[in-house]
Amino acid sequence: MIYNAPIQDMLFLIRDWIGIDRLNALPGYEEVDLDLIEAVLEEAGKFASTELLAINREGDEHGATFDDGNVTTPPGFKEAYKQFIEAGWTSIDANPDHGGQGLPKTLQGLIDEILGATNVAFKLYTELSRGAYHCLAHSASEEICDKYLPNLVEGVWSGTMCLTEPHCGTDLGLLKTKATPAGDGTYKLSGEKIFITSGDHDLTENILHLVIARVDGAPAGTRGISLFLVPKFLVNDDGSLGERNTVQTASIEHKMGIKASATCSLVFNDATGYMIGEENRGLAAMFKMMNLERITVGLQGLGLSDIALQNALDYAHERRQSKAPAPRPEEGAAADPIVYQPEMKRQLLTIRSQVEGARALSVFAGLNIDIMEKSPDAETAAVAESTVALLTPIIKAYFSDLGMSSTLSAQQIYGGHGYVREHGMEQLVRDCRIAPIYEGTNEVQALDLVSRKITGRMTEFANQFLDGWLTVLDEYADGSHGDIAGAARLGLNHLIEATQWVQSKAEAGDDAAMRGCATQYLRLFALAFIGCLWAQIVDSIADNEGEFYDVKRKVASFYMQQVLPETAFLLDVIVNGSDALGDFEVADFAV
Amino acid sequence: MIYNAPIQDMLFLIRDWIGIDRLNALPGYEEVDLDLIEAVLEEAGKFASTELLAINREGDEHGATFDDGNVTTPPGFKEAYKQFIEAGWTSIDANPDHGGQGLPKTLQGLIDEILGATNVAFKLYTELSRGAYHCLAHSASEEICDKYLPNLVEGVWSGTMCLTEPHCGTDLGLLKTKATPAGDGTYKLSGEKIFITSGDHDLTENILHLVIARVDGAPAGTRGISLFLVPKFLVNDDGSLGERNTVQTASIEHKMGIKASATCSLVFNDATGYMIGEENRGLAAMFKMMNLERITVGLQGLGLSDIALQNALDYAHERRQSKAPAPRPEEGAAADPIVYQPEMKRQLLTIRSQVEGARALSVFAGLNIDIMEKSPDAETAAVAESTVALLTPIIKAYFSDLGMSSTLSAQQIYGGHGYVREHGMEQLVRDCRIAPIYEGTNEVQALDLVSRKITGRMTEFANQFLDGWLTVLDEYADGSHGDIAGAARLGLNHLIEATQWVQSKAEAGDDAAMRGCATQYLRLFALAFIGCLWAQIVDSIADNEGEFYDVKRKVASFYMQQVLPETAFLLDVIVNGSDALGDFEVADFAV
Repeated sequence: MIYNAPIQDMLFLIRDWIGIDRLNALPGYEEVDLDLIEAVLEEAGKFASTELLAINREGDEHGATFDDGNVTTPPGFKEAYKQFIEAGWTSIDANPDHGGQGLPKTLQGLIDEILGATNVAFKLYTELSRGAYHCLAHSASEEICDKYLPNLVEGVWSGTMCLTEPHCGTDLGLLKTKATPAGDGTYKLSGEKIFITSGDHDLTENILHLVIARVDGAPAGTRGISLFLVPKFLVNDDGSLGERNTVQTASIEHKMGIKASATCSLVFNDATGYMIGEENRGLAAMFKMMNLERITVGLQGLGLSDIALQNALDYAHERRQSKAPAPRPEEGAAADPIVYQPEMKRQLLTIRSQVEGARALSVFAGLNIDIMEKSPDAETAAVAESTVALLTPIIKAYFSDLGMSSTLSAQQIYGGHGYVREHGMEQLVRDCRIAPIYEGTNEVQALDLVSRKITGRMTEFANQFLDGWLTVLDEYADGSHGDIAGAARLGLNHLIEATQWVQSKAEAGDDAAMRGCATQYLRLFALAFIGCLWAQIVDSIADNEGEFYDVKRKVASFYMQQVLPETAFLLDVIVNGSDALGDFEVADFAV
Repeated sequence: MIYNAPIQDMLFLIRDWIGIDRLNALPGYEEVDLDLIEAVLEEAGKFASTELLAINREGDEHGATFDDGNVTTPPGFKEAYKQFIEAGWTSIDANPDHGGQGLPKTLQGLIDEILGATNVAFKLYTELSRGAYHCLAHSASEEICDKYLPNLVEGVWSGTMCLTEPHCGTDLGLLKTKATPAGDGTYKLSGEKIFITSGDHDLTENILHLVIARVDGAPAGTRGISLFLVPKFLVNDDGSLGERNTVQTASIEHKMGIKASATCSLVFNDATGYMIGEENRGLAAMFKMMNLERITVGLQGLGLSDIALQNALDYAHERRQSKAPAPRPEEGAAADPIVYQPEMKRQLLTIRSQVEGARALSVFAGLNIDIMEKSPDAETAAVAESTVALLTPIIKAYFSDLGMSSTLSAQQIYGGHGYVREHGMEQLVRDCRIAPIYEGTNEVQALDLVSRKITGRMTEFANQFLDGWLTVLDEYADGSHGDIAGAARLGLNHLIEATQWVQSKAEAGDDAAMRGCATQYLRLFALAFIGCLWAQIVDSIADNEGEFYDVKRKVASFYMQQVLPETAFLLDVIVNGSDALGDFEVADFAV
């Protein structure tokens, strides 16, 4: 397997499109320049394409193992993790107060794509730590932050996110894990949590579990959920490790993919926990972590799409079968490289145009996260926060779906060689398959979008957001690439029409109709919005000459002609397809 | 895992739609009645849902193994195979002259769906035998037929299809395996064949390899390919087994799925072979086998879609998460079964409406195969043959793609539980993933469709076929379900328009444009044609009352509203999307 971090494209997006000045305008990021970003990305790319890629396939074949209550990571993982934390990859966007490097989330997002491309299973051992860090940094007391965060940032400790129980995943209101006040300000937690990523392993000295549970007597449902920090080893006042907490690993899952990542069942048996944030407000605190993680899961899908593309492209250049349409690259050859077959080119471009579009959306979201966190102007920060809230479910679901379509398509390009394990393409499919499921299934993301992000109190914001892009596209209509802007405008119009339809159903209380089109609506949003970004990108480089920019324009045109037109179909099924769904009763399935 | 063979639906299609009289009109099938078909399907369903399903998961976990040159099938496979042949499942559609039961291909197709649903890997040990049988029965001398076919039909011997070599898959013209006349009418074959399904195993006493090779001095390319029968053990004149032929198993593949199926690399080292059919006409003879096998591969996808649907539906009834939209099935419950969530219902219906439509297409194709083989009227047989030729690539590609979308969607409905191995849903995805690849990738099917089945000498037939359906739909326009017919007509119009576009490109010699939309065109054809079948089905039951028929109509409406509208999008990208594809040069990928 090969992997070249797409640094050129990443730098392009910041340099030629959003502009580094947008970042530099934020307090703390004044000094972040393109050279720094390039240097960091180069290092990330080097580490990922050598160390992480090298252990990816053995990690899959060997898997994480569970023996006598302990989890062991596959060969090479300990060494790679040691290098990982020594190089500072756990501290990029953490606060300098806790030992972090204080770099922008925009940059972290690009690094996440690179790491996700080369070894998702490895990345998962570090990813939840970052989520735990941000959750604690945001909601925990100063005392807890001082005690726990530096080690988390340094990477010698890691974190988890303990939500799911056997009977509750999507619907956390059903959770049963209970927390009983111990009388000294701490709590005793008892219950079973499943599907806990990195719930146990041998990479760090301690593991900080962030656990949601119900305090005795708390209200039923989501209003009675509190958040607790439950360390694997208790931490003494001097920061040294104390006795082992009563959290046991019952088993690890045998999964379709990400086999090197230990997915644990944890049993809490009167385990000592510290409440984080307010009682019964745990879900809100946990969502700080979850929202970040949702974007990061999306970036896994993006990264896997890109590595799948790179390898399929490589293979398509090497593999010779059949003759290409005229003009053939090499007259007289027995067969031509399959990359010259129009269908192969189409599949490769379908991935590429979406990957580059998704990467633009990733940068756009990263910038908005940075603005939301750093802007001194409250209004600006609020708009950025709403933007991120709106885009989070879209990034999680569309990027992870893209991961599936891309890895499957890339595998297909290999023909039979893609189905055998040695080429690694089938591992990409299996490793990616979890992304549409975990951190809230893509269906949950779609429900979040239709029921909370474009309706209710966010209705006005969502409409302004879309109208704003309409104005932007109108400005491009008479530009040098009016055709691209026009196509994007058509897609956006489909989105706006669908949005109005969903909003009208929500207002009418037709919950079934609103929910029934949620997944289709989310996809329509993603395709149309990325169409807008492509139009803006093309406009921003209208005066740029050279091969790189020419190819960008070609890729944008391909997106407009071959990918974006799906919005018309989606609008059609959303608006005209709801009757048939509604008419079909659950009881009809039995017939 | 559960599986209930969809016998009710299968019988419905024959009874209420195509009519048993269509089969009875064919010589040899006069006595085939619905009772017989039902009895056979009941037995097939029973065997599949007990014996085959029981060994499916262990087959995956254990896999076929290779040791010291020999392949061993997973636990339980030998016993199941013994029962399989004793029950006569290898002889259904074989000629009574060779010990077959002489039953219709229509019935065999339905059985194939059932077997494919429950254990694809097992089925593969029997599937190529049937292909080899039909190939030999069609092309081999009477002497060879008498000597080899009865054991093949009985199932004590099995067959393979040896085409692929390391450097040639799609492009068989590149093949290197050579055949040298031995002077006694036999040939000595030398070369390496890869990806040979059931190339070696311990289920049968002998294995008959059908091998394509190049006789010394034969022309290059596909015009110099001959077909040979190369038995694993040579067969004496009295029919007893003689010495082992010089065919060795070099290795078996480690694959993403169908792990219980041995996919072998075979080395032929001066192996004794018998030429089948005429010299240098081997590919035509082999295609007899391959075309049959392509449909059968499609039926694997259909079967896997159905078992995925059945289990996902079952799970969606059991799993309670969140509240359903009003009216809730059980007011006051903490959570409702997820099947009441509109998005779950939509996914389940998307699978179901396509599965039932594809099953109709399977019956339609089966009937045409029977007519083609049995009709005493040459004209009728010729039309049926062209119909089968036209539909074969569509069935192979669309059904196998449907298998992927269905198994992925069903897995998604299980949430995290679909990603762990114990529920078996992820195995369905992995087992299905080979179907779009083998027996000619789906891209090869699409090229076959655009370059040989709707253009060139089949142009007129294809146009008549589509026009004929336009007339049929017009007849339904004023019927009780004119809305369904109208939707189908819209889809068909999209197909006809796209067909004209592709034909115009072919006539203009614009090979690149024709090939570039092939995959999209095939999908458009499948969706639109199944729309026609749905309209005909609904019309044929216009006067039928009762729950079963009511639900059929609802499923048809869902197909029209939610699935079929994709044809508009596909037509758009075919007709308007070819410029961007053409403008992008292969060299641009390097930028």
